Amino acid sequence: MPRTIEFYYDFGSPASYIAHCRLKSVAARTGAIVELIPILLGAVFKATGNASPIECPAKGRYVAVDLMRFAARDGVPFASNPHFPINTTRLMRAATALRGDPGYARYVDFAFDAMWHFPRNLGDPAEMAAVLTNAGFDAEAVAARAASPEVKDALRATTDVAIARGVFGAPTMFVGDEMWFGQDRVDWVEAAAA
Amino acid sequence: MPRTIEFYYDFGSPASYIAHCRLKSVAARTGAIVELIPILLGAVFKATGNASPIECPAKGRYVAVDLMRFAARDGVPFASNPHFPINTTRLMRAATALRGDPGYARYVDFAFDAMWHFPRNLGDPAEMAAVLTNAGFDAEAVAARAASPEVKDALRATTDVAIARGVFGAPTMFVGDEMWFGQDRVDWVEAAAA
Repeated sequence: MPRTIEFYYDFGSPASYIAHCRLKSVAARTGAIVELIPILLGAVFKATGNASPIECPAKGRYVAVDLMRFAARDGVPFASNPHFPINTTRLMRAATALRGDPGYARYVDFAFDAMWHFPRNLGDPAEMAAVLTNAGFDAEAVAARAASPEVKDALRATTDVAIARGVFGAPTMFVGDEMWFGQDRVDWVEAAAA
Repeated sequence: MPRTIEFYYDFGSPASYIAHCRLKSVAARTGAIVELIPILLGAVFKATGNASPIECPAKGRYVAVDLMRFAARDGVPFASNPHFPINTTRLMRAATALRGDPGYARYVDFAFDAMWHFPRNLGDPAEMAAVLTNAGFDAEAVAARAASPEVKDALRATTDVAIARGVFGAPTMFVGDEMWFGQDRVDWVEAAAA
Protein backbone atom coordinates (compact mmCIF):
# COMPACT_ATOMS: atom_id res chain seq x y z
CA MET A 1 0.00 0.00 0.00
CA PRO A 2 1.43 3.43 -0.88
CA ARG A 3 2.42 5.60 2.09
CA THR A 4 0.98 9.03 2.67
CA ILE A 5 3.13 12.12 3.17
CA GLU A 6 1.14 14.78 5.00
CA PHE A 7 2.43 18.13 3.82
CA TYR A 8 1.51 21.17 5.92
CA TYR A 9 2.13 24.33 3.94
CA ASP A 10 1.47 28.05 3.63
CA PHE A 11 1.94 29.78 0.28
CA GLY A 12 3.87 32.53 2.07
CA SER A 13 6.69 30.13 2.85
CA PRO A 14 9.36 29.81 0.12
CA ALA A 15 10.68 26.67 1.82
CA SER A 16 7.18 25.18 1.43
CA TYR A 17 7.32 25.97 -2.28
CA ILE A 18 10.69 24.26 -2.75
CA ALA A 19 9.59 21.23 -0.72
CA HIS A 20 6.34 21.06 -2.70
CA CYS A 21 8.29 20.94 -5.98
CA ARG A 22 10.70 18.30 -4.63
CA LEU A 23 7.89 16.14 -3.22
CA LYS A 24 6.53 15.63 -6.74
CA SER A 25 9.62 13.65 -7.70
CA VAL A 26 9.53 11.88 -4.33
CA ALA A 27 5.94 10.82 -5.08
CA ALA A 28 6.97 9.67 -8.56
CA ARG A 29 9.88 7.63 -7.19
CA THR A 30 8.19 6.11 -4.14
CA GLY A 31 4.55 5.94 -5.17
CA ALA A 32 3.72 7.86 -1.99
CA ILE A 33 0.63 10.05 -1.91
CA VAL A 34 1.24 13.66 -0.90
CA GLU A 35 -1.65 15.12 1.07
CA LEU A 36 -1.54 18.91 0.71
CA ILE A 37 -2.78 20.44 3.98
CA PRO A 38 -3.18 24.24 4.12
CA ILE A 39 -2.42 25.98 7.41
CA LEU A 40 -2.02 29.58 8.54
CA LEU A 41 1.66 30.01 9.32
CA GLY A 42 1.02 33.29 11.15
CA ALA A 43 -1.33 31.49 13.55
CA VAL A 44 1.27 28.74 14.05
CA PHE A 45 3.91 31.35 14.92
CA LYS A 46 1.56 33.09 17.34
CA ALA A 47 0.55 29.86 19.09
CA THR A 48 4.06 28.41 19.38
CA GLY A 49 6.09 31.56 20.01
CA ASN A 50 8.10 30.88 16.86
CA ALA A 51 8.94 33.61 14.34
CA SER A 52 9.91 33.92 10.71
CA PRO A 53 13.68 33.77 10.11
CA ILE A 54 13.45 37.27 8.65
CA GLU A 55 12.81 38.55 12.19
CA CYS A 56 16.56 38.03 12.69
CA PRO A 57 18.15 39.97 9.78
CA ALA A 58 21.38 37.91 9.70
CA LYS A 59 19.38 34.68 9.63
CA GLY A 60 17.04 36.10 7.02
CA ARG A 61 19.97 36.91 4.72
CA TYR A 62 21.42 33.42 5.18
CA VAL A 63 18.09 31.66 4.63
CA ALA A 64 17.66 33.56 1.35
CA VAL A 65 21.03 32.19 0.17
CA ASP A 66 20.22 28.74 1.51
CA LEU A 67 16.90 28.56 -0.37
CA MET A 68 18.65 29.60 -3.58
CA ARG A 69 21.22 26.82 -3.05
CA PHE A 70 18.50 24.18 -2.65
CA ALA A 71 16.51 25.53 -5.60
CA ALA A 72 19.64 25.44 -7.80
CA ARG A 73 20.67 21.96 -6.65
CA ASP A 74 17.19 20.54 -7.13
CA GLY A 75 16.36 22.35 -10.37
CA VAL A 76 13.46 24.27 -8.84
CA PRO A 77 12.76 27.58 -10.60
CA PHE A 78 12.75 30.09 -7.76
CA ALA A 79 12.61 33.85 -7.40
CA SER A 80 12.33 35.72 -4.13
CA ASN A 81 9.10 37.70 -4.10
CA PRO A 82 9.54 41.50 -3.99
CA HIS A 83 5.99 41.86 -2.62
CA PHE A 84 6.85 39.77 0.43
CA PRO A 85 5.54 39.60 3.11
CA ILE A 86 2.13 38.90 1.66
CA ASN A 87 -0.91 38.14 3.79
CA THR A 88 -1.87 34.64 2.65
CA THR A 89 -5.10 34.24 4.64
CA ARG A 90 -7.36 34.51 1.57
CA LEU A 91 -5.15 32.12 -0.42
CA MET A 92 -5.13 29.53 2.37
CA ARG A 93 -8.90 29.85 2.81
CA ALA A 94 -9.35 29.24 -0.93
CA ALA A 95 -7.08 26.18 -0.58
CA THR A 96 -9.24 24.98 2.28
CA ALA A 97 -12.41 25.53 0.24
CA LEU A 98 -10.96 23.55 -2.67
CA ARG A 99 -9.62 20.56 -0.69
CA GLY A 100 -11.30 17.46 -2.07
CA ASP A 101 -12.01 19.16 -5.41
CA PRO A 102 -10.29 17.41 -8.35
CA GLY A 103 -8.67 20.73 -9.30
CA TYR A 104 -7.24 21.37 -5.82
CA ALA A 105 -3.68 20.20 -6.58
CA ARG A 106 -3.66 22.38 -9.70
CA TYR A 107 -4.64 25.43 -7.62
CA VAL A 108 -1.82 24.67 -5.17
CA ASP A 109 0.68 24.42 -8.04
CA PHE A 110 -0.49 27.64 -9.65
CA ALA A 111 -0.57 29.61 -6.40
CA PHE A 112 2.92 28.43 -5.39
CA ASP A 113 4.23 29.28 -8.87
CA ALA A 114 2.61 32.71 -8.80
CA MET A 115 4.20 33.34 -5.40
CA TRP A 116 7.74 32.00 -5.84
CA HIS A 117 8.38 31.52 -9.54
CA PHE A 118 6.94 34.39 -11.53
CA PRO A 119 6.48 36.08 -8.81
CA ARG A 120 3.23 38.03 -8.35
CA ASN A 121 1.61 40.05 -5.58
CA LEU A 122 -0.92 37.48 -4.41
CA GLY A 123 -2.04 39.82 -1.66
CA ASP A 124 -3.92 41.57 -4.48
CA PRO A 125 -7.36 39.90 -4.92
CA ALA A 126 -7.14 40.41 -8.70
CA GLU A 127 -3.89 38.39 -8.83
CA MET A 128 -5.48 35.67 -6.73
CA ALA A 129 -8.49 35.64 -9.06
CA ALA A 130 -6.11 35.23 -12.02
CA VAL A 131 -4.52 32.19 -10.36
CA LEU A 132 -7.93 30.63 -9.75
CA THR A 133 -9.04 31.33 -13.31
CA ASN A 134 -5.82 29.92 -14.76
CA ALA A 135 -6.31 26.81 -12.62
CA GLY A 136 -9.74 26.37 -14.22
CA PHE A 137 -11.95 27.69 -11.42
CA ASP A 138 -14.73 30.26 -11.25
CA ALA A 139 -12.69 32.77 -9.26
CA GLU A 140 -15.68 34.67 -7.91
CA ALA A 141 -17.45 31.54 -6.71
CA VAL A 142 -14.31 30.21 -4.99
CA ALA A 143 -13.63 33.57 -3.34
CA ALA A 144 -17.20 33.57 -2.00
CA ARG A 145 -16.87 30.02 -0.64
CA ALA A 146 -13.45 30.88 0.82
CA ALA A 147 -15.00 33.76 2.78
CA SER A 148 -17.67 31.56 4.39
CA PRO A 149 -17.58 30.92 8.16
CA GLU A 150 -17.35 27.15 7.53
CA VAL A 151 -14.16 27.52 5.52
CA LYS A 152 -12.64 29.98 8.01
CA ASP A 153 -13.41 27.53 10.82
CA ALA A 154 -12.03 24.58 8.86
CA LEU A 155 -8.71 26.35 8.22
CA ARG A 156 -8.49 27.33 11.87
CA ALA A 157 -9.23 23.73 12.92
CA THR A 158 -6.62 22.29 10.56
CA THR A 159 -4.05 24.75 11.88
CA ASP A 160 -4.95 23.82 15.47
CA VAL A 161 -4.52 20.11 14.69
CA ALA A 162 -1.12 20.86 13.15
CA ILE A 163 -0.03 22.78 16.26
CA ALA A 164 -1.27 19.94 18.49
CA ARG A 165 0.89 17.53 16.44
CA GLY A 166 3.98 19.65 17.07
CA VAL A 167 4.07 21.88 13.98
CA PHE A 168 5.92 25.16 14.61
CA GLY A 169 6.67 26.25 11.02
CA ALA A 170 6.25 25.40 7.35
CA PRO A 171 6.72 23.18 5.54
CA THR A 172 6.16 20.36 8.00
CA MET A 173 5.87 16.82 6.73
CA PHE A 174 4.60 13.69 8.44
CA VAL A 175 4.92 10.04 7.50
CA GLY A 176 2.78 8.35 10.14
CA ASP A 177 3.77 10.01 13.41
CA GLU A 178 7.29 10.98 12.30
CA MET A 179 7.66 14.70 11.65
CA TRP A 180 10.19 16.68 9.62
CA PHE A 181 10.49 20.42 9.18
CA GLY A 182 11.96 22.26 6.20
CA GLN A 183 12.82 21.86 2.53
CA ASP A 184 16.12 20.38 3.70
CA ARG A 185 14.42 17.32 5.19
CA VAL A 186 12.71 16.08 2.01
CA ASP A 187 15.39 13.38 1.58
CA TRP A 188 14.55 12.04 5.04
CA VAL A 189 10.84 12.11 4.17
CA GLU A 190 11.56 10.20 0.97
CA ALA A 191 13.48 7.52 2.90
CA ALA A 192 10.56 7.15 5.31
CA ALA A 193 8.01 7.02 2.49
CA ALA A 194 9.95 4.52 0.37
CA MET B 1 46.61 23.09 -1.83
CA PRO B 2 44.21 21.82 0.82
CA ARG B 3 41.20 24.03 1.52
CA THR B 4 40.41 25.41 4.94
CA ILE B 5 37.05 24.95 6.63
CA GLU B 6 36.55 27.63 9.26
CA PHE B 7 34.41 26.14 11.98
CA TYR B 8 32.80 28.56 14.45
CA TYR B 9 31.59 26.66 17.50
CA ASP B 10 30.42 26.90 21.09
CA PHE B 11 30.57 23.83 23.33
CA GLY B 12 27.03 24.60 24.46
CA SER B 13 25.67 23.80 21.00
CA PRO B 14 24.87 20.11 20.40
CA ALA B 15 24.68 20.79 16.67
CA SER B 16 28.27 22.08 16.88
CA TYR B 17 29.29 18.80 18.53
CA ILE B 18 27.70 16.68 15.80
CA ALA B 19 29.19 18.84 13.04
CA HIS B 20 32.61 18.68 14.74
CA CYS B 21 32.48 14.87 14.74
CA ARG B 22 31.35 14.75 11.10
CA LEU B 23 33.99 17.24 9.95
CA LYS B 24 36.72 14.80 11.02
CA SER B 25 35.66 12.39 8.30
CA VAL B 26 35.23 15.28 5.88
CA ALA B 27 38.83 16.31 6.60
CA ALA B 28 39.99 12.72 6.13
CA ARG B 29 38.17 12.39 2.81
CA THR B 30 38.96 15.80 1.33
CA GLY B 31 42.30 16.67 2.93
CA ALA B 32 40.75 19.94 4.07
CA ILE B 33 42.04 21.63 7.21
CA VAL B 34 39.41 22.39 9.83
CA GLU B 35 40.14 25.57 11.75
CA LEU B 36 38.36 25.39 15.12
CA ILE B 37 37.24 28.91 16.06
CA PRO B 38 35.68 29.41 19.49
CA ILE B 39 32.90 32.01 19.82
CA LEU B 40 30.39 32.96 22.49
CA LEU B 41 27.01 31.87 21.18
CA GLY B 42 25.20 33.94 23.79
CA ALA B 43 26.90 37.09 22.52
CA VAL B 44 26.01 36.14 18.93
CA PHE B 45 22.35 35.72 19.91
CA LYS B 46 22.36 39.05 21.72
CA ALA B 47 23.99 40.93 18.83
CA THR B 48 21.87 39.42 16.05
CA GLY B 49 18.50 39.14 17.82
CA ASN B 50 18.55 35.38 17.27
CA ALA B 51 17.58 32.89 20.01
CA SER B 52 18.16 29.27 20.88
CA PRO B 53 15.54 26.90 19.38
CA ILE B 54 14.61 25.91 22.94
CA GLU B 55 13.05 29.37 23.34
CA CYS B 56 10.21 27.98 21.23
CA PRO B 57 9.21 24.76 23.08
CA ALA B 58 7.73 23.00 20.01
CA LYS B 59 10.88 23.78 18.02
CA GLY B 60 13.07 22.69 20.92
CA ARG B 61 11.32 19.30 21.05
CA TYR B 62 11.72 18.83 17.29
CA VAL B 63 15.37 19.89 17.25
CA ALA B 64 16.11 17.33 19.98
CA VAL B 65 14.65 14.59 17.75
CA ASP B 66 16.40 16.00 14.68
CA LEU B 67 19.83 15.95 16.38
CA MET B 68 19.26 12.34 17.47
CA ARG B 69 18.41 11.43 13.86
CA PHE B 70 21.64 12.97 12.54
CA ALA B 71 23.71 11.42 15.33
CA ALA B 72 22.22 7.99 14.60
CA ARG B 73 22.65 8.32 10.83
CA ASP B 74 26.23 9.52 11.12
CA GLY B 75 27.32 7.18 13.90
CA VAL B 76 28.01 10.03 16.33
CA PRO B 77 27.65 8.98 20.00
CA PHE B 78 25.32 11.60 21.41
CA ALA B 79 23.45 12.15 24.65
CA SER B 80 21.45 15.22 25.52
CA ASN B 81 22.98 16.91 28.55
CA PRO B 82 20.75 16.97 31.65
CA HIS B 83 22.78 19.91 33.04
CA PHE B 84 21.88 22.05 30.03
CA PRO B 85 21.88 25.03 29.68
CA ILE B 86 25.46 25.38 30.85
CA ASN B 87 27.32 28.69 30.82
CA THR B 88 30.22 27.99 28.46
CA THR B 89 32.10 31.28 28.88
CA ARG B 90 34.97 29.72 30.85
CA LEU B 91 35.23 26.79 28.41
CA MET B 92 35.34 29.09 25.40
CA ARG B 93 37.93 31.33 27.06
CA ALA B 94 40.08 28.25 27.72
CA ALA B 95 39.65 27.29 24.06
CA THR B 96 40.76 30.80 23.09
CA ALA B 97 43.78 30.57 25.42
CA LEU B 98 44.79 27.24 23.89
CA ARG B 99 44.42 28.17 20.19
CA GLY B 100 47.77 27.64 18.56
CA ASP B 101 48.84 25.15 21.23
CA PRO B 102 49.56 21.66 19.80
CA GLY B 103 47.07 20.21 22.31
CA TYR B 104 44.24 22.57 21.33
CA ALA B 105 42.34 20.13 19.10
CA ARG B 106 42.55 17.50 21.84
CA TYR B 107 40.99 19.94 24.32
CA VAL B 108 38.17 20.67 21.86
CA ASP B 109 37.52 16.94 21.42
CA PHE B 110 37.53 16.26 25.15
CA ALA B 111 35.32 19.23 26.01
CA PHE B 112 32.77 18.35 23.29
CA ASP B 113 32.75 14.72 24.47
CA ALA B 114 32.32 15.74 28.10
CA MET B 115 29.41 17.96 27.07
CA TRP B 116 27.49 15.78 24.59
CA HIS B 117 28.72 12.25 24.90
CA PHE B 118 29.26 11.31 28.56
CA PRO B 119 27.72 14.02 29.44
CA ARG B 120 29.10 16.06 32.36
CA ASN B 121 28.24 19.38 34.01
CA LEU B 122 30.97 21.52 32.49
CA GLY B 123 29.58 24.57 34.23
CA ASP B 124 31.34 23.12 37.28
CA PRO B 125 34.99 24.32 37.33
CA ALA B 126 36.11 20.94 38.71
CA GLU B 127 34.63 19.15 35.68
CA MET B 128 36.33 21.64 33.37
CA ALA B 129 39.61 21.04 35.19
CA ALA B 130 39.15 17.29 34.68
CA VAL B 131 38.72 17.83 30.94
CA LEU B 132 41.88 19.94 30.78
CA THR B 133 43.85 17.40 32.82
CA ASN B 134 42.62 14.50 30.66
CA ALA B 135 43.63 16.46 27.58
CA GLY B 136 47.16 16.73 29.00
CA PHE B 137 47.10 20.29 30.28
CA ASP B 138 47.93 21.91 33.61
CA ALA B 139 44.33 22.77 34.44
CA GLU B 140 45.16 25.49 36.92
CA ALA B 141 47.56 27.24 34.59
CA VAL B 142 45.10 27.17 31.70
CA ALA B 143 42.26 28.44 33.91
CA ALA B 144 44.49 31.33 34.99
CA ARG B 145 45.40 32.20 31.38
CA ALA B 146 41.76 31.85 30.35
CA ALA B 147 40.75 34.45 32.94
CA SER B 148 43.23 37.04 31.66
CA PRO B 149 41.95 40.27 30.04
CA GLU B 150 43.88 39.41 26.84
CA VAL B 151 42.01 36.14 26.41
CA LYS B 152 38.64 37.68 27.27
CA ASP B 153 39.29 40.40 24.68
CA ALA B 154 40.45 37.87 22.08
CA LEU B 155 37.28 35.78 22.47
CA ARG B 156 35.14 38.91 22.22
CA ALA B 157 37.04 40.01 19.11
CA THR B 158 36.68 36.61 17.43
CA THR B 159 32.96 36.64 18.19
CA ASP B 160 32.64 40.15 16.76
CA VAL B 161 34.42 39.09 13.56
CA ALA B 162 32.05 36.13 13.25
CA ILE B 163 29.01 38.40 13.65
CA ALA B 164 30.45 40.82 11.09
CA ARG B 165 30.78 37.88 8.65
CA GLY B 166 27.10 37.03 9.07
CA VAL B 167 27.20 34.40 11.82
CA PHE B 168 23.91 34.19 13.77
CA GLY B 169 24.27 30.75 15.41
CA ALA B 170 26.49 27.70 15.82
CA PRO B 171 27.93 25.79 14.20
CA THR B 172 28.73 28.08 11.29
CA MET B 173 31.19 26.95 8.65
CA PHE B 174 33.00 28.91 5.96
CA VAL B 175 34.90 27.75 2.90
CA GLY B 176 36.31 31.02 1.58
CA ASP B 177 33.42 33.46 1.73
CA GLU B 178 30.68 30.85 1.47
CA MET B 179 28.86 30.29 4.74
CA TRP B 180 26.75 27.36 5.99
CA PHE B 181 24.87 27.02 9.25
CA GLY B 182 24.06 23.78 11.09
CA GLN B 183 25.07 20.14 11.40
CA ASP B 184 22.76 19.48 8.46
CA ARG B 185 24.94 21.45 6.06
CA VAL B 186 28.17 19.46 6.54
CA ASP B 187 27.55 17.65 3.22
CA TRP B 188 27.48 21.02 1.46
CA VAL B 189 30.67 22.07 3.24
CA GLU B 190 32.33 18.84 2.14
CA ALA B 191 31.34 19.47 -1.48
CA ALA B 192 32.82 22.96 -1.29
CA ALA B 193 36.01 21.74 0.38
CA ALA B 194 36.58 18.81 -1.99
